[in-house]
Amino acid sequence: MDFHSDNAAGVHPAILKAVAGAAGPHPAGYDADDWSRRLDAAFSALFAAPVRVFAVPSGTAANALSLAAIVPPWGGIYAHQDAHIEVDEAGAVSFFTGGASHILVPGANGRLGVDALETAASRRRGDVHQVPAAALTITQASECGTVYRPDDVAALADWAHGRGLKLHMDGARFANAVAHLCCHPADISWRAGVDILSFGAIKNGGMSAEAIVVFDAPLAETLPIRRKRGGMMPSKGRFAAAQLLAMVEDGPWLDNARAANAAAARIAATVPRRLLYPVEANALFLRLTPGEKAQLRTQGFGFYDWELLGDDAARFVLRWDQSAEAIAALAQALAAL
Amino acid sequence: MDFHSDNAAGVHPAILKAVAGAAGPHPAGYDADDWSRRLDAAFSALFAAPVRVFAVPSGTAANALSLAAIVPPWGGIYAHQDAHIEVDEAGAVSFFTGGASHILVPGANGRLGVDALETAASRRRGDVHQVPAAALTITQASECGTVYRPDDVAALADWAHGRGLKLHMDGARFANAVAHLCCHPADISWRAGVDILSFGAIKNGGMSAEAIVVFDAPLAETLPIRRKRGGMMPSKGRFAAAQLLAMVEDGPWLDNARAANAAAARIAATVPRRLLYPVEANALFLRLTPGEKAQLRTQGFGFYDWELLGDDAARFVLRWDQSAEAIAALAQALAAL
Amino acid sequence: MDFHSDNAAGVHPAILKAVAGAAGPHPAGYDADDWSRRLDAAFSALFAAPVRVFAVPSGTAANALSLAAIVPPWGGIYAHQDAHIEVDEAGAVSFFTGGASHILVPGANGRLGVDALETAASRRRGDVHQVPAAALTITQASECGTVYRPDDVAALADWAHGRGLKLHMDGARFANAVAHLCCHPADISWRAGVDILSFGAIKNGGMSAEAIVVFDAPLAETLPIRRKRGGMMPSKGRFAAAQLLAMVEDGPWLDNARAANAAAARIAATVPRRLLYPVEANALFLRLTPGEKAQLRTQGFGFYDWELLGDDAARFVLRWDQSAEAIAALAQALAAL
Amino acid sequence: MDFHSDNAAGVHPAILKAVAGAAGPHPAGYDADDWSRRLDAAFSALFAAPVRVFAVPSGTAANALSLAAIVPPWGGIYAHQDAHIEVDEAGAVSFFTGGASHILVPGANGRLGVDALETAASRRRGDVHQVPAAALTITQASECGTVYRPDDVAALADWAHGRGLKLHMDGARFANAVAHLCCHPADISWRAGVDILSFGAIKNGGMSAEAIVVFDAPLAETLPIRRKRGGMMPSKGRFAAAQLLAMVEDGPWLDNARAANAAAARIAATVPRRLLYPVEANALFLRLTPGEKAQLRTQGFGFYDWELLGDDAARFVLRWDQSAEAIAALAQALAAL
Repeated sequence: MDFHSDNAAGVHPAILKAVAGAAGPHPAGYDADDWSRRLDAAFSALFAAPVRVFAVPSGTAANALSLAAIVPPWGGIYAHQDAHIEVDEAGAVSFFTGGASHILVPGANGRLGVDALETAASRRRGDVHQVPAAALTITQASECGTVYRPDDVAALADWAHGRGLKLHMDGARFANAVAHLCCHPADISWRAGVDILSFGAIKNGGMSAEAIVVFDAPLAETLPIRRKRGGMMPSKGRFAAAQLLAMVEDGPWLDNARAANAAAARIAATVPRRLLYPVEANALFLRLTPGEKAQLRTQGFGFYDWELLGDDAARFVLRWDQSAEAIAALAQALAAL
Repeated sequence: MDFHSDNAAGVHPAILKAVAGAAGPHPAGYDADDWSRRLDAAFSALFAAPVRVFAVPSGTAANALSLAAIVPPWGGIYAHQDAHIEVDEAGAVSFFTGGASHILVPGANGRLGVDALETAASRRRGDVHQVPAAALTITQASECGTVYRPDDVAALADWAHGRGLKLHMDGARFANAVAHLCCHPADISWRAGVDILSFGAIKNGGMSAEAIVVFDAPLAETLPIRRKRGGMMPSKGRFAAAQLLAMVEDGPWLDNARAANAAAARIAATVPRRLLYPVEANALFLRLTPGEKAQLRTQGFGFYDWELLGDDAARFVLRWDQSAEAIAALAQALAAL
Repeated sequence: MDFHSDNAAGVHPAILKAVAGAAGPHPAGYDADDWSRRLDAAFSALFAAPVRVFAVPSGTAANALSLAAIVPPWGGIYAHQDAHIEVDEAGAVSFFTGGASHILVPGANGRLGVDALETAASRRRGDVHQVPAAALTITQASECGTVYRPDDVAALADWAHGRGLKLHMDGARFANAVAHLCCHPADISWRAGVDILSFGAIKNGGMSAEAIVVFDAPLAETLPIRRKRGGMMPSKGRFAAAQLLAMVEDGPWLDNARAANAAAARIAATVPRRLLYPVEANALFLRLTPGEKAQLRTQGFGFYDWELLGDDAARFVLRWDQSAEAIAALAQALAAL
Repeated sequence: MDFHSDNAAGVHPAILKAVAGAAGPHPAGYDADDWSRRLDAAFSALFAAPVRVFAVPSGTAANALSLAAIVPPWGGIYAHQDAHIEVDEAGAVSFFTGGASHILVPGANGRLGVDALETAASRRRGDVHQVPAAALTITQASECGTVYRPDDVAALADWAHGRGLKLHMDGARFANAVAHLCCHPADISWRAGVDILSFGAIKNGGMSAEAIVVFDAPLAETLPIRRKRGGMMPSKGRFAAAQLLAMVEDGPWLDNARAANAAAARIAATVPRRLLYPVEANALFLRLTPGEKAQLRTQGFGFYDWELLGDDAARFVLRWDQSAEAIAALAQALAAL
């Protein structure tokens, strides 16, 4: 009954089968194999637009390489103050960009808005003495389990593009956002103005591959060599590509996200008054006293204290493969508090 | 009948089984899982010494991170002029070290010797105007398919340590060297003075994980955060760790290398006069006229022209899973030329 | 009647004379000249402690190199949210450290306090997923023209050292702080726990050299090669060294700062109700309506709008060589508003 | 009687006067001062073409920033194996470019030729696994005191441009080359295809400023912020600019170089059989036995052993301000050996 993180999720059978299917000898390596060569087409079909795709081994790698593709070493990146790139990636963006920095902006429920960005931007000059902003990054679904609507994204994209900034989306839980919105993946990506996307697979039933999806082809220009010298172009790249193909071609990406979202919604419906943020994806932030938390843990439930919100906050993340029993048990235990 | 590269090899069943065995949900991530936590012990047993181990997604990553652990941004690295880090890794070492450079040294049969290093070193001053040498890297087995004996390694280690340099070994084909020498892995690593090793698995029946093995504990100090900010600390690290455990605990690492070496030796025995380098591992460099090469290709054999050695040179690499039929066919075809 | 910045100041005659005195041919270069070799001793005498000194061509260089000496590429630096390194140095710290980032902290009157630092630190975890803090930097005198007392510095140093952080002081106006406090330079530097200091000279009657002063000898270890590869070790280093020697050996450093401070104090005394910050060094931040500002400008006074504080704020900086007439005129004009 | 280096030269009176002339207070800083604003025009006049100019504090800075403007972090730079950037700049190019590496090429008399470059290029592939070449750098006058003719430069530029490479010239002794060739500065720079030039002043009677001269305007785009975050945009930039203006507007740059060349030519004429390289600028490399060297040193002559050429080699560099007595004495002493 573990609700710590969707990183704890298992691998979807279709992914595992795809990996096994690539296990024999194969004459081509380094992106020239039969799987890697189909990546662009598979994601272009998914997004209904021509895209370039690069497999990478972690979400941190996806974010950092994506941002390196659009931000110079001296650039600044507008980001939510609790963004994963700021609080959980150990400076990877600075490393891959060659020195870029984050310009942190507050925002309710983990989402950024144009007003707060405008305030932050108004405090910056345009001279050579200050890091020039070069990109805006948003997280979809957000670190608080909330989701940007298509027009939210479009408004942010307009703001960014109007200032000469590129828009990156950290989509570690992109599928959960699509599932919540019941929209086409394009609606919250390129149609809304996203230039480059970290497309999450690992938390959503994947194994060891995430994807960078580039909607604006020229932005992909430096990615092959950045990825190679970043040590992320494996000789047997077919195993990463096979995972990603299985994820998007056979559909589990959306089914898995729907399952996780539904589980979260079920729990949320049980304890509406305890919710610290709207539940729009697969994470719940609940108000629970230390005593209540202890009680739940005694019953075998695993979850994180969420100290940023104080002593009486906890985070539960629902996985695509969470058992019906565990979900029911959590709902019941929470209701019984 | 493909002999282009051992990167084309299949995945050993034990590795695939280990990956499948980790596919269920697991409560811990980021190196805290049950597989990752056993890595140090498994490799310590293999090397008969306490070591620290870090899983990474490519040989380039293993080399670049290893060197970053021992070379400052302004350091120089003595390396063979044909070393993989120089000719095939797109500047990864410079990227991960923050600017270090290679000091290229010639050496027959892909191996470096103390004399050539001494000559190179004698041309360098010790002042602040010049990049100070900080490490020596050697490749075992070498890019030419040759192997350093234990006392070769020891002599190089003595030379390096006497100058305050650390010794790194690029062991993308370390197993093939051990198999050739019939020695203990320690004999050509820590016992001979190697400080840090890129331990290859992918070419040798692995899937998507290589290992950095640190023999000198303090050198591991910065590796966790370098690896994390390098985007190489995946949430589901259990899949990389499971591969490495299966490789070294269950033994296929050495069996696989022996099989590949034996196949190469069999071919070599057929055409001793065509050999451009001694055959000590799983690669053969053969003198073949353009016409002979065309003839072989017509018969369905795949291999690389090796232009560094001229128009009449070719490289064949034998894999752990090369079929007996393919090996016999190649031997016969070469003999028939 | 220009009060924009002390960067507009002239060069003190002693500095100019020293430069002229070094103009003949001199057999030694690259820090081996007679002037450079005396730097350590001259500053050691000034600070009454053995120090290492490195001449650099700008305050930005002094700060960035100093921080590079004490912060790894993945480190974080606690800094005031309005610190010069954050708002005016274009990411130089990130460049010279190889990727370090600023952890911004608020503080009244341009000064940091232990409480705000403690709050910031409490939001940070100690794991590998987050940039580890490595240093604290404070500005003396601050960007608001205020000064840290010796025990303020000591409290910050204790806090920093207790957490394993080094303490850097951006002393672009260090002399003004010493002049204000009537203390020994050691009292607000090494005796209070400062590990490394950017010692400002240019704003204070210098020409083109600032100094990095290292109080903790091992911290200087990497500075020679960092400075060299940073392009800041000129062949004719004697001209930078001569300036610094003239500044500290012959005393103008303190006289100049006293003159600038006195001028600022005189203006401050005229308009006490307009002061936005205490006036403790040579800068004044005044509440002035747009109309008042326009009136002053019409009379020929030059100064900056200070938009960070709103539309009715202005900054005046007094120089060591501000003419008595200009000072009197400004006092009179302000009084007459 | 010091002949170690032209770094030992004094400062030309016109330069010193210009510095003194800028010593008063001046309302504008950071390149907005009256001197800095005239730099582009002054150098455009000198080169008879529109150029952008950036003052920097050392030749190392000029080379490293110039190359950073034209080479990406993953780029390679063709350079003579004895080039200053390789043997005397401590990895500055790698630092400023963010990781670029040197591709070393041999060449007689310190000069590169198209044939050797073609050989080096033929060994490189064009794939993502190898650092792609991005620039060619040549030194004019070379480290051996030889000079590229206009058509030499043009041939190299053609070769470079034909491969998509930019051409950088390290002109630490550019004036000596112009003086030797009796050509217009344009003839060996932009007219011959040079894209960006490190224009040396310090060795030639300057004090503390060198210039980067950009002939191809778009290449200058990133230089302002690179220079700023490199700590090389001093607040009182007028002192560097004043030096450069005095150097090129008032003419000493060419007179000084002529004087130094003439002195070298005079010595060379005395000992033609001892010359190890043609004498085309202000440096002489002489064959002298250890005994002869000792004899000269006993007589008070200072010079370097030149170990790269063996035990019986020595380097003498003639300065613009070398006294007639010293020159005559050296000529006489050499003749008397």
